[in-house]
Amino acid sequence: MAEGKEAHGWAARDVSGHLSPYHFSRRVPKDDDVTIKVLYCGICHTDLHIIKNDWGNAMYPVVPGHEIVGVVTGVSGGVTRFKAGDTVGVGYFVGSCRSCDSCGKGNENYCAGVVPTSNGVDHAHGGVPTRGFSDVIVVNEHYVVRVPDGLALDRTAPLLCAGVTVYSPMMRHGLNEPGKHLGVVGLGGLGHVAVKFGKAFGMKVTVISTSASKRQEAIENLGADEFLISRDPEQMKAATGTMDGIIDTVSAWHPITPLLALLKPLGEMVIVGGPSKPLELPAYAFVPGGKGVVGSNVGSVGDCQAMLEFAGKHGIGAEVEVIKMDYVNTAIERLEKNDVRYRFVIDVAGSLGSAA
Amino acid sequence: MAEGKEAHGWAARDVSGHLSPYHFSRRVPKDDDVTIKVLYCGICHTDLHIIKNDWGNAMYPVVPGHEIVGVVTGVSGGVTRFKAGDTVGVGYFVGSCRSCDSCGKGNENYCAGVVPTSNGVDHAHGGVPTRGFSDVIVVNEHYVVRVPDGLALDRTAPLLCAGVTVYSPMMRHGLNEPGKHLGVVGLGGLGHVAVKFGKAFGMKVTVISTSASKRQEAIENLGADEFLISRDPEQMKAATGTMDGIIDTVSAWHPITPLLALLKPLGEMVIVGGPSKPLELPAYAFVPGGKGVVGSNVGSVGDCQAMLEFAGKHGIGAEVEVIKMDYVNTAIERLEKNDVRYRFVIDVAGSLGSAA
Repeated sequence: MAEGKEAHGWAARDVSGHLSPYHFSRRVPKDDDVTIKVLYCGICHTDLHIIKNDWGNAMYPVVPGHEIVGVVTGVSGGVTRFKAGDTVGVGYFVGSCRSCDSCGKGNENYCAGVVPTSNGVDHAHGGVPTRGFSDVIVVNEHYVVRVPDGLALDRTAPLLCAGVTVYSPMMRHGLNEPGKHLGVVGLGGLGHVAVKFGKAFGMKVTVISTSASKRQEAIENLGADEFLISRDPEQMKAATGTMDGIIDTVSAWHPITPLLALLKPLGEMVIVGGPSKPLELPAYAFVPGGKGVVGSNVGSVGDCQAMLEFAGKHGIGAEVEVIKMDYVNTAIERLEKNDVRYRFVIDVAGSLGSAA
Repeated sequence: MAEGKEAHGWAARDVSGHLSPYHFSRRVPKDDDVTIKVLYCGICHTDLHIIKNDWGNAMYPVVPGHEIVGVVTGVSGGVTRFKAGDTVGVGYFVGSCRSCDSCGKGNENYCAGVVPTSNGVDHAHGGVPTRGFSDVIVVNEHYVVRVPDGLALDRTAPLLCAGVTVYSPMMRHGLNEPGKHLGVVGLGGLGHVAVKFGKAFGMKVTVISTSASKRQEAIENLGADEFLISRDPEQMKAATGTMDGIIDTVSAWHPITPLLALLKPLGEMVIVGGPSKPLELPAYAFVPGGKGVVGSNVGSVGDCQAMLEFAGKHGIGAEVEVIKMDYVNTAIERLEKNDVRYRFVIDVAGSLGSAA
C-alpha cells in the first residue's frame, strides 16, 4: 500500500503506558477523506485504559486521543461538506458499517462495526487508526463535525467525547426540558459538562457527590442549583422522589439504590460509566415506581454536531487545563488520581508543529 | 359510622392463609360511589402474598381479590359515568390522592397514596377495603372501568391486573408497533397475556422460558412465533441482538445479563416481577448498547380502560380455569406450585349468590 502523509505523534509502546515521540505514516486519503491539522486533543479516561492495555486489545505502538479539534488542510474529490480552512472536530469513532439498522437510524455509536478513534482497526480504509495525539489525521468526512464560530477551541475538544456522552442521553431521555430536575452523579470530565448543559436547557440541576469539597465549585463556578452528599442519609432522604432524571458518570462501583430513590415515579437514571463489578438492582428500588436504569454510549455523529451547535449558542465549553505534549505522562499520572479540573487538553499544534 | 350493605366473602384469618366464609358490612356509599355485584374474580400471586402476610402488612381478616368483573347494581347521586346494569371492572387499586403529580398525569398507579384493592386502608372513604372475593363491592367511580360488550367475563377478570400490568409498559415503551420483535420471559398469568397483546399489535413474539415443555402451548395455542429455552446457550446466542424489547414477568431471581444480550441496541427490558434478591446488572451488558432495564407497576385507570377496549376489539381474554369459591384453598395450593394454565378465576356470583 502506498504511504500517505508523514505524521508525528506520541505513542505508548507497552503496558507501562509511557508515551514518547513516534513517527508514522497516515493512509493515502480516500475519495471521501478529510485531512485535518490537529490543534487540540483532550485526554479521556478511556485513553488511560487503552495505553495500559486494561481491555486487552491494545495494538502497540498506541497513539491515543479521541477528543480532537483541528482545521481542515485538504479534502479529497468526493468530500462535499468540508473545505480547507474549516474548523472541525473528531470524536470517539471514525468509522461504522453504514449498513446496519443502527447506522440507518443515525445511531452509528451503536453499530457493531464501529471503529474507535483511539484503538480501532479501520478495515474499510486501511492504515493505522486516527488517534489525536498527533499532528495530522485523515478521516472519512462522515465522522467529522463542524465546530461553530466563537467557541474556544481548547475548551471544545473535550466536548467531542465527554460532552456528547452526556448530551446524547439527555436528549434521548427528555432530560433537556426547562423546569425539570436533573441529578448529576460525579463531578468530573463528564459530570461538569452535564451540569452546564442542564443549566443551559433551563433545568434545575443538583450535583450528587461523595465529597463535600466540591460544593463550592459546583454551585459557584458551574452554576448547579443544589449539592447533595450521597453519604449523608438525611440529605438524601430529604431529596427522595424529587428528580426527573439522573446522569451517573461515576466509573467506580457504587450503590445505585439510594440514587434511584431520588427519582420521581417513571424517572430514569442514565449510566454512562462502566463499573467493573455488576451494579445491584433490587426490584423494590425501581419496579414500584416504574423507574429505569439505562445505559448510554457516547453519541452519534448527529448528536455530536447538534451538541456543538448547542454549545456554540450557549457559549459552553469544558473547564480545561491546557498542557504541552511533553507534559502528557505527568498529566496521565495526575488523571489517574483525579487531580484535574476537569480535563487535560493537549495543545498539539503548539507542541508538535504540524506536518499537515 | 353507619353500616352499609351486608357482604359475604371468604377471608384469611391468620398467616396460614386458609380462607373461609366471612360476613361483613360494606361502607355506606359516598356521593361518587358505585355499588357492584361481583361476578368473577381472578386469583393473582399478590393475593397469595397478602393472605400469608409475606409483606408484613396483612390486616386480618383479609378478603383478597383485585381482578374483579361485575355488574353495577346502584350508583350514588354524584356518579356520572355508570348506571345500574353496566358491566364493569375493578383492578389493583381503588383510591389515590388525586392531587399529586402522578395523579395529575393520570398515573394513579404511581401515586404514593394509592389504595390497593386487596390490602389497602381507604382513609378517604373509610370502611374495609374493596376486595373481590366477596359478593358486593362499593367503589369510587374514578377507579371503575367499563367492560366492552362481547368479552367473556370470566376470561376478562385477569386482565384487570395481569393484563394491564403487561399492557401498560408495552404502550409506554413502544412495544406495540407492528413488525417489532417482543420477547416475553415467563409464560404464566402475565406472560401469556403479553403474548396475546404482542400478536394483536402485529409484533413478532418470542417466548423465553426455562422449560421446553411450554413450547407447544406457546406456539400452537397462544400464537407465539418462536420459543427460546433460556438455558440453551446456542439458542440464546443465535437470538443475540434481535429483540426490540422484552417483558420479563418472572418473580423468582434469575440472571438478566443473557436476556439483555437478546436486545437490539437501545432496546429495553421491562421488569414487572419482584425478585427478592437484587438483580445483577453488569455495565458491559447494557452501557455499550444503550440498553435499559425499566420497572413497571400495574397500570393506570386510563391504561386499564384502553387495555379492555383493545382486548374487546381483538377478542383477547386470559386462559382461565374457572372455579367455585369452595375450591379456593385448593386453587391457592396449586397456584403456589404454578399448577394452573394460566389463571384461576372464581365464579363469585355462581358460588355465593349475592346480597347486592
